[in-house]
Amino acid sequence: MFVLGIDPGLSRCGYACVASGSPPRATALGVLTTPPSQSLPLRLASLRAELAALIADLHPDVVAVEHVFFQVNVRTAMSVGQASGLALAEAAAAGCEVVQYTPNEVKEAVTGWGGADKAQVQKMVQARLGLARPPRPADAADAAALALCHLAVAPFRTRVAALR
Amino acid sequence: MFVLGIDPGLSRCGYACVASGSPPRATALGVLTTPPSQSLPLRLASLRAELAALIADLHPDVVAVEHVFFQVNVRTAMSVGQASGLALAEAAAAGCEVVQYTPNEVKEAVTGWGGADKAQVQKMVQARLGLARPPRPADAADAAALALCHLAVAPFRTRVAALR
Repeated sequence: MFVLGIDPGLSRCGYACVASGSPPRATALGVLTTPPSQSLPLRLASLRAELAALIADLHPDVVAVEHVFFQVNVRTAMSVGQASGLALAEAAAAGCEVVQYTPNEVKEAVTGWGGADKAQVQKMVQARLGLARPPRPADAADAAALALCHLAVAPFRTRVAALR
Repeated sequence: MFVLGIDPGLSRCGYACVASGSPPRATALGVLTTPPSQSLPLRLASLRAELAALIADLHPDVVAVEHVFFQVNVRTAMSVGQASGLALAEAAAAGCEVVQYTPNEVKEAVTGWGGADKAQVQKMVQARLGLARPPRPADAADAAALALCHLAVAPFRTRVAALR
């Protein structure tokens, strides 16, 4: 199973594709960027095209997108929300299973503690994926943590769904 | 000039295409809906496809999208923000000029008063477009008001741009 984690953002949108296995393996890791000098509509159009190309390229089974909240950062919340909308729409249009996790769910699943800091998450991502160093930039590490969160939680989700 | 106004929303996304002239004329007016029974990603994917089809069909010169704020309704703010992101991205990808107006700017331009209520906006839209009755539902009227706002403001915007 291939899981594409997406940490939505307009200036920097982190992504990481992780293949399930023991250990799981990163097959792609990076950041999509749009230039602040462009207008918002052009930046969103460019991000959408890049997300569509990424999903077509990696054809993941599952796309895990960070569940965005307003409270965190009001200044960037709208553009992060808009970017998440593009990611969710593209993933669903491509026929992927689409899931969302909150930052706390990701930290809990990856480090065992919902209050973990960025550095702890990066170290755990590095260890789980057997990387020589923590993934950079932080947005790519967050996206990898999203994918790892889904791999950890997916068997449980399937079992719960079977009980319904 | 054809201006497509879009009042973004996930459950109901109002649209109205208005041709400039004396008087201006509505060439399309309606609402795109997505079923609350579907998952958020599928609803966003369906809205995106419908917006793309609408823009391709009407090929407006300008797309005017309501500028969304968080403060107004926290419960629906995220999905409205996501819907606005789709509209902005599709309009820019189609090569349209894309503009955003706040609700107060629209009311000010259409009724002459930023504090006007829904009924006043609907009556002015009806009068300006020479319609037999106020456009229904309210989302379509709001979209028509956005298009009329742009037609009122555009000459001024052009003159200001020429001075730069």
